[in-house]
Amino acid sequence: MRIGIVGFGGVGRAFLKLIYDKKCLLEKEGLNIQVNYIIDIYGGVYNKNGLDLPKFIDFLSSERDITKYCDGGKPEEINFEFMLQNSDVDLLVEMTPTNKETGEPGMTHIKRCLEHKINVVTSNKGPILLAYKELYDLAKTNNVQLCIGCTTGGALPTVNGGVMDLAGSNITSIEGVLNGTTNFIIKEMEDTGCLYSEALKKAQESGIAETNPSLDVEGYDTASKLLILTNVLMNTQKSLADISIEGITKVTPEDIKKATSLNKKYKLVGKTEMVSKELKMTVKLEMLDSSSPLYGGEGKNKAVRYVSDTLGELTIIGGASGVTPAAASILRDIVNIHRGYKFIG
Amino acid sequence: MRIGIVGFGGVGRAFLKLIYDKKCLLEKEGLNIQVNYIIDIYGGVYNKNGLDLPKFIDFLSSERDITKYCDGGKPEEINFEFMLQNSDVDLLVEMTPTNKETGEPGMTHIKRCLEHKINVVTSNKGPILLAYKELYDLAKTNNVQLCIGCTTGGALPTVNGGVMDLAGSNITSIEGVLNGTTNFIIKEMEDTGCLYSEALKKAQESGIAETNPSLDVEGYDTASKLLILTNVLMNTQKSLADISIEGITKVTPEDIKKATSLNKKYKLVGKTEMVSKELKMTVKLEMLDSSSPLYGGEGKNKAVRYVSDTLGELTIIGGASGVTPAAASILRDIVNIHRGYKFIG
Repeated sequence: MRIGIVGFGGVGRAFLKLIYDKKCLLEKEGLNIQVNYIIDIYGGVYNKNGLDLPKFIDFLSSERDITKYCDGGKPEEINFEFMLQNSDVDLLVEMTPTNKETGEPGMTHIKRCLEHKINVVTSNKGPILLAYKELYDLAKTNNVQLCIGCTTGGALPTVNGGVMDLAGSNITSIEGVLNGTTNFIIKEMEDTGCLYSEALKKAQESGIAETNPSLDVEGYDTASKLLILTNVLMNTQKSLADISIEGITKVTPEDIKKATSLNKKYKLVGKTEMVSKELKMTVKLEMLDSSSPLYGGEGKNKAVRYVSDTLGELTIIGGASGVTPAAASILRDIVNIHRGYKFIG
Repeated sequence: MRIGIVGFGGVGRAFLKLIYDKKCLLEKEGLNIQVNYIIDIYGGVYNKNGLDLPKFIDFLSSERDITKYCDGGKPEEINFEFMLQNSDVDLLVEMTPTNKETGEPGMTHIKRCLEHKINVVTSNKGPILLAYKELYDLAKTNNVQLCIGCTTGGALPTVNGGVMDLAGSNITSIEGVLNGTTNFIIKEMEDTGCLYSEALKKAQESGIAETNPSLDVEGYDTASKLLILTNVLMNTQKSLADISIEGITKVTPEDIKKATSLNKKYKLVGKTEMVSKELKMTVKLEMLDSSSPLYGGEGKNKAVRYVSDTLGELTIIGGASGVTPAAASILRDIVNIHRGYKFIG
């Protein structure tokens, strides 16, 4: 399988190392991944017979600027359009940064590849949030696959859980503890009794929370993931505006203490359910007791729970954090495509 | 897709009703299931263009003996060999009763169908326990699929979880709360403080435990499921004799009371892990606290937890009980085969 990687940050680097480390395992099932392109904003590297991975990985150990690596062609001329014109990739790994307003540049990359009958695996939430149905239809028309497992919980198999593990059933509700940063902050408050602001500061110092943490702590990250899962698994076309969103910024040590005294835990829960024949979508703090299946989604673990008509309830807990698990979730989608699965078909 | 059903009990009946109820959903994704054969020990029914499902389901509402239903051919002449000779099925649904000594008659049914390039989906643990590797190789040689999701937790997607949700990673340990009957008995003891024997009696009266409950309460059912998961997902060829098995029969109200006072719960846990470079397999009661991901596997819920090298931990909780969820897990495998997935390839 010839792939092109567009957008090349930490997950991209981990992905290259991963497919090199897993080479034998993958070849055993007939999957020979050949990386023909790596393209970032400044240029790219290209080899029509596949990059020499050990050599390139070694190069990356001492150099961040990929345009300094010379293989075939001039690095500054190797860009997305060059890749499309060459027609020598079977699958695009789209990992440019998320833009939730326009979806660009990922939106264009994904659309153009699908139109060129190139499969796409992406970690980029933007285009999926804004235009999943359109992209799905485009993939279907062109008889190729669009896999988005990495956009909603990384290593946690949220999309797989809904599509493959509940195949043949109808999903009637979705509930999830989908954001690691808020998990960390709440756990810190539970463990130390500190203020929200102190727990946030610790999360920022540990590199878990962003300098501007609002996407996480105000619930928009959870809402984005819930939105994608709802549109993909319940066949709707909702937008963020349809979700009632509350974050965790107002939680006090007293709230946490009270929950603990009741043997319960607060979690930031995103939920889609049918209320009076309409889908109701919310993101808010909920106090869960230990009998709740989502209770286990804390700290580094995320969790999602589906209710289906014929296969009952399904709760999935896990989702290691970091660049390697995120890369492994990209690889999971690639392996499942290789095994013939039609996520779209 | 033309299917033959061999072995026709409660799950088989639920399966027929399910594929009829889901007809529209399935046809939307291009899956048109046509039941050509239903065969049980006394004979069968056959229609080369597919049975008239509503008519047959209606017949079943007042009659248990399927040989009294007349469609094409003489019911007593419609048997497994007759089906094979006609070569007009694409997939066998094998649901004869489990025999853990010989695997028969399921073993023969599965082998002969795979040899005839017919896909197989089965709920029958016997052949899978005794000869999974051989059957896997046979399927691979003949380029067909063998799906066994229903053998290890029914609606709980244990096999899917390992094969699809952890695709591209290596599973390094398996742990599960896999038996509903023991869950019920322990829960009953927790809730009422009763003796083991009293809880067992209640489980038997509710139809949850068998008259001879030894397979469940002595841990062999859990061991069987653990064995299948280990052989399928960790690529080994272990047998039941490799598992150290303890059941729940010696648990006392005092044990339960003590666990509750510590805010913990007993579960019958099956576990495969690497100890000193060797796989160690055990089934025994363990006291879990609420931070354990398996804690949620209680009452009607089962749970399985995998640890992988690159995708971290994955815990799956769920698995509704009853004939419809079991039938839905058969249908799930069929849908995933239809979507092109190569479980074996």
